Amino acid sequence: MIIAPDPDAPGLSQPVTGVDETGAPVTLPVVTEKPLTLFLNRQEIVTSMTIGDWPAELAVGYFLNQNMLHDDDVITGIDHDDDLGVVIVRTERETDFEAKMKRKIRTSGCAEGTAYGDMMERFDSIRLNPDMRLHASHLIPISKSINTTPSLYLSAGAIHGCVLCSADRPLVYMEDIGRHNAVDKIAGWMFLNDVAPDDKMFYTTGRLTTEMVIKTVQMRIPVLVSRSGFTNEAVALARQAGLTLIGRAKGKRFIALSGEDRIVFDGDATADEFIDTPSPQRGAAR
Amino acid sequence: MIIAPDPDAPGLSQPVTGVDETGAPVTLPVVTEKPLTLFLNRQEIVTSMTIGDWPAELAVGYFLNQNMLHDDDVITGIDHDDDLGVVIVRTERETDFEAKMKRKIRTSGCAEGTAYGDMMERFDSIRLNPDMRLHASHLIPISKSINTTPSLYLSAGAIHGCVLCSADRPLVYMEDIGRHNAVDKIAGWMFLNDVAPDDKMFYTTGRLTTEMVIKTVQMRIPVLVSRSGFTNEAVALARQAGLTLIGRAKGKRFIALSGEDRIVFDGDATADEFIDTPSPQRGAAR
Repeated sequence: MIIAPDPDAPGLSQPVTGVDETGAPVTLPVVTEKPLTLFLNRQEIVTSMTIGDWPAELAVGYFLNQNMLHDDDVITGIDHDDDLGVVIVRTERETDFEAKMKRKIRTSGCAEGTAYGDMMERFDSIRLNPDMRLHASHLIPISKSINTTPSLYLSAGAIHGCVLCSADRPLVYMEDIGRHNAVDKIAGWMFLNDVAPDDKMFYTTGRLTTEMVIKTVQMRIPVLVSRSGFTNEAVALARQAGLTLIGRAKGKRFIALSGEDRIVFDGDATADEFIDTPSPQRGAAR
Repeated sequence: MIIAPDPDAPGLSQPVTGVDETGAPVTLPVVTEKPLTLFLNRQEIVTSMTIGDWPAELAVGYFLNQNMLHDDDVITGIDHDDDLGVVIVRTERETDFEAKMKRKIRTSGCAEGTAYGDMMERFDSIRLNPDMRLHASHLIPISKSINTTPSLYLSAGAIHGCVLCSADRPLVYMEDIGRHNAVDKIAGWMFLNDVAPDDKMFYTTGRLTTEMVIKTVQMRIPVLVSRSGFTNEAVALARQAGLTLIGRAKGKRFIALSGEDRIVFDGDATADEFIDTPSPQRGAAR
């Protein structure tokens, strides 16, 4: 992977002591959650609770996914002050978002700052690459790689992860407490590293909701995969946008409810390889 | 239970057809997700994506948890228009929330509309009932009851649930795609039915994050339990507020990282009864 989680990086989790069901003391690693305030030029936009890694990518990705930053914008500088918990993204173009702040959408995840109507107009105008192919046989090595990479999910639980993949392997694996932050970090990383979305697949923990589908389409990634289930509106939006939507993905099994045309059904029907979804460990002192 | 999920209620889920990993057709129930716009008196406050049940409770609970509605407010009427996707809550007191809308917090779940400072001031002023007792032995029958009650979680997945419990049994079980909606429905129900929080326990799917702890404390419920893990800030806030915080609760096992004083460690150490966390079914046609 180009970027993999670094669960031992200082500050991302710490040992906390409590008691178990018998009253005996127990210590376990617990993830960090701290506020980070995002500024776009001179304007304070939002305070996000995050594990605290990849702050520049998080800010850029948030602004992109909220349509405050555009694909053709030029970033002139990014400042991060860890003590103050502040990130400032500066652009060549002048920005002014007071008006956008007024109408908010609260989705089943969380996406504010964009009027529902504007968002859907933009959504409708996006065309996803029809020529991208997802081979069913690749899902097993991809999920095995993701499930065996050391991560905060495996060491401490309480975390969501998203992985940008090429057709056959994971590339960038970001985590955060809020799944939307993990998504935004990937969007920010793609922008800052000028990475094309057309031949990529997006793998996420957590449910396939409208918010997840909207963000994936905004990022112009043609395939979205999750271990979890779907909502009907997520399916409807995916079909509207021509997004390949795959859920309940476990080992070689999955269900695709949209964009089946991109899928090459070359999975081995006789293989008994089954990649169990790992559970986080319960802590050091047990 | 006073209120249990009604997964067969019309409109909450529908069968959707796609393909499995071999390309064979498969049909499965998929939960509904639709927009509901909440008005407080004449003011449009937010549009929330929801499964669509208990709209009055959701609106009242949202306004309470955002501190726009107060414990002593008198509601003069609630109108719900299902076709338009609108709920209007009317109060005796005049309200005006333009000012509150400006500063937003995006937590690891999602909580907007409240300045971080105001929220923490209010949080610090709340005293939780120290005399409530949680018997460890009660957690098994409570989780068994929750895990065996028919629910959208069991039939369709892609959903979060929260359950208001007395010391030894579940009372009100609400579900929604976004966990914060399930929490708000319970807060709204308690307000509309004048139900005291002091002797209650709150059981949630999903992680124990700052948002979850803040809402539980605002609702004045002294004990919060989850199957999942913790964040460090959630633990710190729970300790600050004197909230009993129990996570990784599975069968008789759990870890308490705050408020251990309320726990009576009367679990039977020799019992082999283990309540497995059920997984949602994969759909009708398999």
